[in-house]
Amino acid sequence: MGHAGKVKIAVLGGSGYTAVELIKILLRHPHAEIVAVTSRDAQPVSDYHPSLLGRLDLVCEPFDAAALKAKGVQVAFGCLPHGASMEAVAPLLDQGIRVVDLSADYRLRDPNLYAEWYGESHHDTKNLAHAVYGLPEIYGANVRDARLVANPGCYPQTGILGLAPLVAGKLIEQTGIIVNSLSGVSGAGRTPKLAYHFPECNESVTAYNVGKHRHTPEIEQALTHVGGSPVQVIFTPHLVPMDRGIFSTIYATPLRAVSEAEVLAQYREYYTGKPFVRVRTGLPSTKDSVGSNFIDLAVRVVRGKIIVLASEDNLIRGASGVAVQNFNLMHGFDERIGF
Amino acid sequence: MGHAGKVKIAVLGGSGYTAVELIKILLRHPHAEIVAVTSRDAQPVSDYHPSLLGRLDLVCEPFDAAALKAKGVQVAFGCLPHGASMEAVAPLLDQGIRVVDLSADYRLRDPNLYAEWYGESHHDTKNLAHAVYGLPEIYGANVRDARLVANPGCYPQTGILGLAPLVAGKLIEQTGIIVNSLSGVSGAGRTPKLAYHFPECNESVTAYNVGKHRHTPEIEQALTHVGGSPVQVIFTPHLVPMDRGIFSTIYATPLRAVSEAEVLAQYREYYTGKPFVRVRTGLPSTKDSVGSNFIDLAVRVVRGKIIVLASEDNLIRGASGVAVQNFNLMHGFDERIGF
Amino acid sequence: MGHAGKVKIAVLGGSGYTAVELIKILLRHPHAEIVAVTSRDAQPVSDYHPSLLGRLDLVCEPFDAAALKAKGVQVAFGCLPHGASMEAVAPLLDQGIRVVDLSADYRLRDPNLYAEWYGESHHDTKNLAHAVYGLPEIYGANVRDARLVANPGCYPQTGILGLAPLVAGKLIEQTGIIVNSLSGVSGAGRTPKLAYHFPECNESVTAYNVGKHRHTPEIEQALTHVGGSPVQVIFTPHLVPMDRGIFSTIYATPLRAVSEAEVLAQYREYYTGKPFVRVRTGLPSTKDSVGSNFIDLAVRVVRGKIIVLASEDNLIRGASGVAVQNFNLMHGFDERIGF
Amino acid sequence: MGHAGKVKIAVLGGSGYTAVELIKILLRHPHAEIVAVTSRDAQPVSDYHPSLLGRLDLVCEPFDAAALKAKGVQVAFGCLPHGASMEAVAPLLDQGIRVVDLSADYRLRDPNLYAEWYGESHHDTKNLAHAVYGLPEIYGANVRDARLVANPGCYPQTGILGLAPLVAGKLIEQTGIIVNSLSGVSGAGRTPKLAYHFPECNESVTAYNVGKHRHTPEIEQALTHVGGSPVQVIFTPHLVPMDRGIFSTIYATPLRAVSEAEVLAQYREYYTGKPFVRVRTGLPSTKDSVGSNFIDLAVRVVRGKIIVLASEDNLIRGASGVAVQNFNLMHGFDERIGF
Repeated sequence: MGHAGKVKIAVLGGSGYTAVELIKILLRHPHAEIVAVTSRDAQPVSDYHPSLLGRLDLVCEPFDAAALKAKGVQVAFGCLPHGASMEAVAPLLDQGIRVVDLSADYRLRDPNLYAEWYGESHHDTKNLAHAVYGLPEIYGANVRDARLVANPGCYPQTGILGLAPLVAGKLIEQTGIIVNSLSGVSGAGRTPKLAYHFPECNESVTAYNVGKHRHTPEIEQALTHVGGSPVQVIFTPHLVPMDRGIFSTIYATPLRAVSEAEVLAQYREYYTGKPFVRVRTGLPSTKDSVGSNFIDLAVRVVRGKIIVLASEDNLIRGASGVAVQNFNLMHGFDERIGF
Repeated sequence: MGHAGKVKIAVLGGSGYTAVELIKILLRHPHAEIVAVTSRDAQPVSDYHPSLLGRLDLVCEPFDAAALKAKGVQVAFGCLPHGASMEAVAPLLDQGIRVVDLSADYRLRDPNLYAEWYGESHHDTKNLAHAVYGLPEIYGANVRDARLVANPGCYPQTGILGLAPLVAGKLIEQTGIIVNSLSGVSGAGRTPKLAYHFPECNESVTAYNVGKHRHTPEIEQALTHVGGSPVQVIFTPHLVPMDRGIFSTIYATPLRAVSEAEVLAQYREYYTGKPFVRVRTGLPSTKDSVGSNFIDLAVRVVRGKIIVLASEDNLIRGASGVAVQNFNLMHGFDERIGF
Repeated sequence: MGHAGKVKIAVLGGSGYTAVELIKILLRHPHAEIVAVTSRDAQPVSDYHPSLLGRLDLVCEPFDAAALKAKGVQVAFGCLPHGASMEAVAPLLDQGIRVVDLSADYRLRDPNLYAEWYGESHHDTKNLAHAVYGLPEIYGANVRDARLVANPGCYPQTGILGLAPLVAGKLIEQTGIIVNSLSGVSGAGRTPKLAYHFPECNESVTAYNVGKHRHTPEIEQALTHVGGSPVQVIFTPHLVPMDRGIFSTIYATPLRAVSEAEVLAQYREYYTGKPFVRVRTGLPSTKDSVGSNFIDLAVRVVRGKIIVLASEDNLIRGASGVAVQNFNLMHGFDERIGF
Repeated sequence: MGHAGKVKIAVLGGSGYTAVELIKILLRHPHAEIVAVTSRDAQPVSDYHPSLLGRLDLVCEPFDAAALKAKGVQVAFGCLPHGASMEAVAPLLDQGIRVVDLSADYRLRDPNLYAEWYGESHHDTKNLAHAVYGLPEIYGANVRDARLVANPGCYPQTGILGLAPLVAGKLIEQTGIIVNSLSGVSGAGRTPKLAYHFPECNESVTAYNVGKHRHTPEIEQALTHVGGSPVQVIFTPHLVPMDRGIFSTIYATPLRAVSEAEVLAQYREYYTGKPFVRVRTGLPSTKDSVGSNFIDLAVRVVRGKIIVLASEDNLIRGASGVAVQNFNLMHGFDERIGF
């Protein structure tokens, strides 16, 4: 098989869960060719991820933007932790390599907000200024020509896409919105910690970072953009004992009496032509979307509140899948290719 | 070992999860002696529950109130489904046997409410009239002399005990309260159905009965009692892939600006002297309470909302444990005996 | 997208787990087009499998070989239970439709063995006579021209491929071989039963059908074929609390002293050119192979026994994946296409 | 409640899983009083184990044998890692405090065997010489007067009790015995490692330490004692995705043709009067024994092999429960007290 016409790709930070998911999607993508994976240790990618044995034969290399350029890399996917990502992006862009950054480093437009929520100042404000927030259903037009795409967070996508039709339609109060979210444990990354030690988190659920989770401003920024005026959410993440999947139950107060049918119609219209959003009449389960790039939405009206149920695979739709969707948009491919 | 002074007990409906939990607690209780277990099929209890092999040697018998009386039964615990329970209670009371009913049949004071939410009319309104709602922390004084205790539901206890201090203290708006609850699968009972088939519900979460769950009026009835005026909740149950445990995240709107410290103090004061309520500063995990009769509570104030986190074991605190707590109160024993 | 050159496919028995896995693989296959899914109830496939919403728009139809022929169906994949499959195969073959049958109906060459283990006599011995056992690594040459492929069982593939190099190399005693296997619960199918009710099988392991499992003769038939003389195994299946994955730990007695290196070399040689068998030095986890068509093998020599560890995804490699691998062979496609 | 007549107890190494299980059992024990818990950090026990909030109010203290003596401690339960335990035992015994040591330090009679399997030499051979291996069903008579009880390992109990009737009855070949064991993840302890990180080990099974696990010589030592001549086992541990439970499938070769009934009778006779061993006709599930001190056994004869199925809770029967059973024997209490 020749690789004529394939886009040459580097994956940065190859040891974690988003990297291995990304690699698996790209290996099936007809127009993508992974030519480099970076990591601190120069070991085979399949030592980190035995599932890749016999599928990807690369040895990890240290990050070096010029070396990647020399290999013909056209697009780099950043699977680095926030903070570290900021160090890699500028050299890549300087080499003319386009970047889809899966970290949080370029998501918040306002560097002060970044400093406030991430506890350190942003030191690549130059590139932050032109980064595009890569939520295709809302910012897709900007993604096409972006040199730097800030891939959206896992939780925020359920909150933003779950609320966008209501905010865009001026249907709800823009404060006091509750986003109650449940996530599988892979969302916490691959570094072992007591909280994610199997006998601790298995057979248990808990809330965490109540009122303090960093995805709060990300949700608000996009919804404020959609609504044209400030939107404020109360976001409560929970950890549930499963590998993957996010389920958000969202409560909003309508500005006037609405019927479930009317709300449903608003969602169907808003997402017309968006192949990865499924507006459903039945209640979604995360299992329906796990393994796919779909986000499932359902709406209910209960005792004067609108309840939105939103479900996705946190590693695919929530990270690596939407990254490939962005990649497709950046190259003029059909969004659905590779899935 | 003699059984002098032990209360003779029958367990009705021995095949399910609440029955086996109840039996395990009672087997350790120094003042309880199980003398009969009823079920449709006359097989050993340990055929239903192999975990009881070598611990309880009884063969199930068909329900017969007179036969139970003849065996000296003083208290019957009803682990029957709603509807069926209603048939058993009157004959037991007629025999002078006190009843702790774990079904929903005697929880709602208003038979119309029962008909509305359970879809059939109540046909033992005579006994409904004197039944006591057995939530010890609120109705404990009434439990002592009750002939019929309506053991509270699993979800409702988290909602009621999670909100009672706020409602009692007139701290919150009494409508628009959100009770977002997660339950392990044992809450669905022991009858196999597709929704609880392992490969369907494992590694998945979903909401169910949104806006329609029967525990809604039960929560409202108790909180209305506590507050002295109508309380309305929006209750959203979810199924999470674990055996047991309920975690409720509750959102209420304070009537005036409150601090977290103030709210916490209110909870600590309200639950002073209640040995099974643990008001905590850290966030609870269901694993902390599973296997015990504790209900764990924590409070947060976030962007103008009070968030209450409430956690319990759905089979113990949520059913069989609180039943034994009620049993203790009915006999003047220390509430904590048997745990 | 035109479908020129695609093979037209029917999936029979669309409601179960092997069907949905098969459909997902085929939807990504560049040379396959699903034109019909059969089931008793004429409902959309996505009603059975919400994960297929937006991906496969077909409504299930009752089984009718002539109607399938009229639609241009060239290959039918049978996802029916054993017994039922036998009814569908003959009419399909009569219509000139090739069949990959995922049931057990055509796996055992000897109809008496079928009667003995499945408790009913075989009533399509005519087609049984020419059916090809579709384990590509061993019978691949026969698959190419087969009209009827008996797709191999999930457990047997780990037993057969785990032992074939030893049996072929005349390295072990051919009786007393132990195949101790662990399976995820999806292997039990989609019909709810108490044994697979989440609160029963979650957080628990058990053995079942000890000495009586129907996959025993299937393992022995293939190994006897490989070895040229009777091979006898003791096969013990266990249920473990996970969705999917099979892990077999196999114990064999070498005929002479062997080193681990020698055994490993035998495996590497035997599986040269077999893209879906990964002979590994490290110990496999089922997670490495779940989601793929790989079977992972490792060998150890301990105190005079050869221990083989074999791992696979029971729904993909164990059923629907190997079915597509067979489909590829039947059409002269690269085995790896579609994965 | 007065504590007259209660045995004063210290728990050493209070931060792990065996400690918290032990504490929960002892809190229910009518003749036990926990007066000290030791740990490196002087924090409340309930900081390590929130489940103990409201149940045990102690603050951990550093280990000091004299200080424990001064508190009246009569028995110390050692929940320390191997190696560390060896440092604590001598000072305790010097103070006249009896010790139940849950580590592996005093299990192997032969210090050379310890050095071989644990990779360091034993430096308390003086006390090793009089330590009693605390498997009550076999060594119960010695436990009564022991000053130092070496509490048995989790896996070994299933292997030893699973095979003892066969070995004692001279029914099987004493080499080539296979002990294939599955364990829940709590068996690996509470220190976070990648292998026990939830998203790694959840939904996956694997074998580990094949042919090299340290419990091998422990099994062999006890069975050799029972049989009077050397017994050799091939022990293969596996990790399965559940919190607790061990399931061992044991394969032995009978010396002569035996029937299942005969083997079963041998087990029933051998375990007569042993309240914590349940010889069953049905196949056990770990769920039947989890939460209890029972070990469940079943036997099958298949194609000339005897298969024994053995199941237990690894933290209770496998560690803390059997420790309390030993405690009971040491004080002349009924073995069953506290369970």
